[in-house]
Amino acid sequence: MSEPQIKFGILGCADIARKLSRAITLAPNATIHAIGSRSLEKATKYAASNNFPETAKIYGSYDAVLDDPDVDAVYIPLPTSLHIKWAVLAAQKKKHILLEKPVALNVGEFDKIVEACELNGVQMMDSTMWMHNPRTGKMKEFILDPHKFGELRSIHAVFTFAADPDFLENDIRVKPDLDALGALGDAGWYCVRAILWANDFQLPKSVTALPGTIFNKAGVIISCGAALLWENGKTATFHCSFLANLTMSVTASGTKGSLHINDFVIPFEENKGSFTTSTESGFTELVTGWAPLPSQHTVMTDVPQEVLMVTEFSRLVKSVKNEGLAVEKKWPTLSRMTQFVLDAVKTSVDKGGETVNLD
Amino acid sequence: MSEPQIKFGILGCADIARKLSRAITLAPNATIHAIGSRSLEKATKYAASNNFPETAKIYGSYDAVLDDPDVDAVYIPLPTSLHIKWAVLAAQKKKHILLEKPVALNVGEFDKIVEACELNGVQMMDSTMWMHNPRTGKMKEFILDPHKFGELRSIHAVFTFAADPDFLENDIRVKPDLDALGALGDAGWYCVRAILWANDFQLPKSVTALPGTIFNKAGVIISCGAALLWENGKTATFHCSFLANLTMSVTASGTKGSLHINDFVIPFEENKGSFTTSTESGFTELVTGWAPLPSQHTVMTDVPQEVLMVTEFSRLVKSVKNEGLAVEKKWPTLSRMTQFVLDAVKTSVDKGGETVNLD
Repeated sequence: MSEPQIKFGILGCADIARKLSRAITLAPNATIHAIGSRSLEKATKYAASNNFPETAKIYGSYDAVLDDPDVDAVYIPLPTSLHIKWAVLAAQKKKHILLEKPVALNVGEFDKIVEACELNGVQMMDSTMWMHNPRTGKMKEFILDPHKFGELRSIHAVFTFAADPDFLENDIRVKPDLDALGALGDAGWYCVRAILWANDFQLPKSVTALPGTIFNKAGVIISCGAALLWENGKTATFHCSFLANLTMSVTASGTKGSLHINDFVIPFEENKGSFTTSTESGFTELVTGWAPLPSQHTVMTDVPQEVLMVTEFSRLVKSVKNEGLAVEKKWPTLSRMTQFVLDAVKTSVDKGGETVNLD
Repeated sequence: MSEPQIKFGILGCADIARKLSRAITLAPNATIHAIGSRSLEKATKYAASNNFPETAKIYGSYDAVLDDPDVDAVYIPLPTSLHIKWAVLAAQKKKHILLEKPVALNVGEFDKIVEACELNGVQMMDSTMWMHNPRTGKMKEFILDPHKFGELRSIHAVFTFAADPDFLENDIRVKPDLDALGALGDAGWYCVRAILWANDFQLPKSVTALPGTIFNKAGVIISCGAALLWENGKTATFHCSFLANLTMSVTASGTKGSLHINDFVIPFEENKGSFTTSTESGFTELVTGWAPLPSQHTVMTDVPQEVLMVTEFSRLVKSVKNEGLAVEKKWPTLSRMTQFVLDAVKTSVDKGGETVNLD
């Protein structure tokens, strides 16, 4: 391998880190250098069962990963409540950071992470994989096309999955001390990101939680939704839940075109992804059919989206580390915006659906 | 033709009546007997250019149609503000009624129409064509299947179309004295019907208009949305608008399954219709794809949905007329329920998004 590789340390043995470990291994410019867990035994087993390279260091603490001078970057899939501690520490140890979503419990915490990253000149990116899928770029091309899509008028995102009884009892995402934002921080993160993405990251002027938020016994949101409104009358809604079968859809309507996708976060199949568009749709003469018919677009993904994410993150890390370039501020900016809107939804939920103004 | 045919009178020369005229002609148990317009010349031209049978009577008034003793049933595609007058008169003249949507300006008016129909023993049905598509039956089978779909948890409907400047200036649907409910009464009717349909016509406990209603200069709604909530925490949202490209989607999530359709009101193609379902969807081991994959279902529609609607309406009319059977109350009941929810959305819009309780 001629290309120099960014050496990753992984904090903890989260399930999602299995997918990311594979992605780091597959990325041409990254390698797994270390993993740390509070249990050395657990980390050892985890490394063995997830095809870690034999050279990977196994540590019995997160600190040990951060103290390893060879680690360039850390992937942090820890419970959200631990992000501020470990992301700030990682930055202080000059480790670049790939951070699971939601990036923090609230924007205030996230700003401290960003501040630490800026002070220490490290790159931060959140682990929203679908942003890096080539399909996402193709969809964006369509949405930005004034002739094919026009101006966005409304967008509706749904992300639900049916958590099993064990998840609903024990997963970190239902625990107030671990992932206090529950379904909103998990599935809702993706909905909010998709809505902001389609709006070219213009913030809405207001956010209103929809009636019907469902909490678990500990007070964590397990199902909720919100309506967003922009200055020019653009609207969005989303619904996220742990209580309904896996659904992952976005419907966007512009003045000239429409877009549909039913697997926006995780494509149905790893090696390709589809979406449907229509432009200046109308009806046949007697309104007995559509003319023109919508088009389906399929984008091949020879490299999985999470590998593209790791590759892009590692490229940025290399440019900071080896070429002395500035960090790419786009990524923490998008993370902050997403967290900011999540916070507003949470505030509106807490206020019984009162509209929260963002200006 | 051996089958005795229900003789239709058509009130007015609305564009939509062209599609319905064809449907009446294609239905095996119906025929166009008469059309009436305030302009005899207009009605004559309309009949000629829409392949009316040569025997069709052309009248210079709506009254003349109602006074024709051979007319069994009338199709009323008049502006909504005229429904109460002409539907009540038609019932009093013992004409069965196929009524365009929205059925009235409000439930109070509609109740007077229903009362007149009941007093005079005439069948009433609203002209929501997609209800009669065989695809709709197949989708209902799926939604009612406890193993494939489970219990409905949320449903999201969108129906928008990009009205041209002439429509936005002159169409009856933007005029406060003609179709005062605007986009809500037009595109919104279909969204509300789909939501109620998927809920097996259980009324929600509350309705909340979403922020961002857009009115035209005359105060008619041209874009709006609402959130609906049921006792058991089920939720729904819809968005309807004259200001965005044709979009016609429903996403429904149950505890065990999901359903997607992007052409629920008017199928993309006249002779077939598709929808997508998934059941107990999950991910591949490393969350790099879905398992199982969703399934697409295509239902052939050798007979267009509006023809099936006219055929079913005519069958009911015949059973009342020739066999002395009671009218089918299901249809006015569904109309009333849809109108009732529309009214609640309008009330919530008028109150700036205040939640309207329906119990």
